[in-house]
Amino acid sequence: MNKQLLLNKRPEGLPDEDTWKYVTKPIPEPKEGEVLIQHHYISLDPAMRGWMMDRKTYIPPVEIGEVMRAGAIGKVLKSNNHPTFKVGDCIVSWGGVQEYEITNGENCYKVDDSIVPMPKYLGALGMPGMTAYFGILEVGKIKEGDIVLVSGAAGAVGSLVGQIAKLKGCTVIGIAGGKHKCDYLINELGFDAAIDYKTENLYEALNDKCPKGIDVYFDNVGGDILNAALSKLRLNARVVICGAISQYNNKKDIIGPSNYLSLLVNRATMQGMVVLDYTENYHKAAQEMGMWMMQGKLSSKEDIYEGINTFYETFLRLFSGDKMGKLILKVI
Amino acid sequence: MNKQLLLNKRPEGLPDEDTWKYVTKPIPEPKEGEVLIQHHYISLDPAMRGWMMDRKTYIPPVEIGEVMRAGAIGKVLKSNNHPTFKVGDCIVSWGGVQEYEITNGENCYKVDDSIVPMPKYLGALGMPGMTAYFGILEVGKIKEGDIVLVSGAAGAVGSLVGQIAKLKGCTVIGIAGGKHKCDYLINELGFDAAIDYKTENLYEALNDKCPKGIDVYFDNVGGDILNAALSKLRLNARVVICGAISQYNNKKDIIGPSNYLSLLVNRATMQGMVVLDYTENYHKAAQEMGMWMMQGKLSSKEDIYEGINTFYETFLRLFSGDKMGKLILKVI
Repeated sequence: MNKQLLLNKRPEGLPDEDTWKYVTKPIPEPKEGEVLIQHHYISLDPAMRGWMMDRKTYIPPVEIGEVMRAGAIGKVLKSNNHPTFKVGDCIVSWGGVQEYEITNGENCYKVDDSIVPMPKYLGALGMPGMTAYFGILEVGKIKEGDIVLVSGAAGAVGSLVGQIAKLKGCTVIGIAGGKHKCDYLINELGFDAAIDYKTENLYEALNDKCPKGIDVYFDNVGGDILNAALSKLRLNARVVICGAISQYNNKKDIIGPSNYLSLLVNRATMQGMVVLDYTENYHKAAQEMGMWMMQGKLSSKEDIYEGINTFYETFLRLFSGDKMGKLILKVI
Repeated sequence: MNKQLLLNKRPEGLPDEDTWKYVTKPIPEPKEGEVLIQHHYISLDPAMRGWMMDRKTYIPPVEIGEVMRAGAIGKVLKSNNHPTFKVGDCIVSWGGVQEYEITNGENCYKVDDSIVPMPKYLGALGMPGMTAYFGILEVGKIKEGDIVLVSGAAGAVGSLVGQIAKLKGCTVIGIAGGKHKCDYLINELGFDAAIDYKTENLYEALNDKCPKGIDVYFDNVGGDILNAALSKLRLNARVVICGAISQYNNKKDIIGPSNYLSLLVNRATMQGMVVLDYTENYHKAAQEMGMWMMQGKLSSKEDIYEGINTFYETFLRLFSGDKMGKLILKVI
C-alpha cells in the first residue's frame, strides 16, 4: 500500500494538523514508459508553505485533495519500458509526500547514491544547493572582497551561500537564531561573524559586525531582518530575495521593508530569484559543488526525521527554527 | 544686493515658513578664476526635501545657515579671468536659492539660450530630463513592446519618461492626480492610458488599464502606488526607484512595499537610481533629447512662478501636486 499526505484545506497562518490528511491506496502499476519509484527521503522546504496558498506564484498551487508537493529521492522498483530509468536506479523527483510514485520521468533525474548518500541530493546537491549557487553567484554577483550578509544562515540554503561566498574571497556575516547555530557558522563553516537575531539588537549588531556596510545581502527571511539589512547597504549593493520565511504564516499583509529607499540612495538592486529558472545549468553547478564537497571546502548538514507519519511536526520545524541545516523526512 | 534663502531649521513633516529665512548681502566680487552669475531661474525639485534632512544620502545635507541648494540658470555678469566662461554666457549651476552666485565653474556648464529658452535647461534638458533618460533607458532597460507604468506622470521626470518609452515602442500608462493632468497625458503627450490616483481605486484601475501586467514600473512617488504597481509585475520586470514624493514629509517611518515578494515570484528587479552617476554621458542624452524636441517628438511643460520671495508657497506645490510639469522660480 502507498501512504500519501493530501492537502486537506488551505491554512491561515501556521498550518495545523487538519491542514493535511493521510490516505492509504494500493500501489499503482506503471504504464508503458513509466516507472514505479519507492521514496527513501522527502525534502521539506519553506517554499512548500507558499504552494499551499490559493494563488499562482511561480508554480501552480497544490490543490485541495492533491498529494502535497515535495522533492523526493528514491529507487526504481519497476520499469515498464522506461527509456532510461532501470530498476534499482536512484532518482530525484517531485514525487510529493508519499511512499511511492509513478512517473514518466519528466522533471526527474538519476543520481549515484554509491558516491554521495541520498540526503545530500536533496540538500547541497539538490534544490537548496542550486538555489545557493545561482543565487549568490548569478543574482548576488559576488566578487572577491565583497562583504556578504546572509540570513537563515544555518539553514539549507544560507549555510551554502555563506560558504560559497567565502570560497570566492568574500567577508561573510551570517544571521541565525541561537548560540548553537551561530557557533556552527563560525566554528564549522568558517563565517567571519555571526549575529543571533533572537538575543541581539539587529541594528547594533550590524553596526558592530558590518561597520563598513554590506555589498550583498542574501535574504531568506524578510521582515525586520531584511529591513535592518537594507539600512547597511553600500554603493551598488545587491539584495537577493530568495525567501521570506518570517512572513509565510502571517495572517495579515506581510511587512514591507520601510528602508527600501536605501536602494535609491545607494543605487542598489533588489532582485528576486526562483531556482527553477536555472535548471539548464544544474549539472554545471552540481559538478562544482560536488568537487568542493569532495575537497572538503563545502560542508552541509542534513537534519533527518523518521517516518512519513511525523510530517506535520517535522514540517513545523522549518518555522520554529528547531532544526539544523536541510530538513528531511526519512520514509523507509 | 544679493537676496539669499538660507536653511533655518530642519523640518519635521511638511516644511513651514520658519524652515527657511531670507537674508540680503552685498553682491560679492569674483576672485581670480571665478565668475559672478546672476540667476534668472531656479529649479524646484522634490529631491531638495531630502537634502534638508540631517543625514548623508547620495550628497551631503544642506547645513543650517547655508544657502538652500538648488539648480539654477543665469548669466555671467563678471569674469575674473575665468578660463572658459565669458560675460554674457548662459550657465547652468548648483547656484542655490539666491539672486547671484560666485563660482569657479565646478559642476557648471554653459548652454545656448538663443536656441532653447532657459527654463528648458532646468527641465527636459536639465536634471529631470537626464533622470528620465537614463532612468528609463539604462535602469528600466525598456525594449519595444514593453508595458511601462509611470507614476508622477505629469511631473517633470514622469512626463518625459512616458514620452521616451512611447518613442521606443512601448505601451505607456501614466498615474497622475486629477482629470486635467490625466487628459494632458493622453491628449498632449500620447500616453496610451492614464490613471487618476485621486479618484480611482488603484488596484481596479491597474487591472483595467494594464490587464497583462507591467514590464517596467518607473516610481517617483512610493507608498500605496508603488505597492499596487508591484502587484502587477510580469516576469523579469524592472522597477526603477527614482523618488518617493508621497513619503518625503512623513513624520514617522516611511511605508515599505508589502508586495515586494512579487519581485521573487516574478524574478523582478527593483533598482535605485541617482542621476548624478550619469554626468559623463549627459551631453549624449541632451543631444538626443534636444533632437527629439526639435522634431516635435518630445514635449515638456514648465510651470514658472515669479519672484524669489514666493519660494515657500511655490515649493509646496511639489507636494500638493498643484503644478504642471517642471516647477521653476523666475528670479528676474
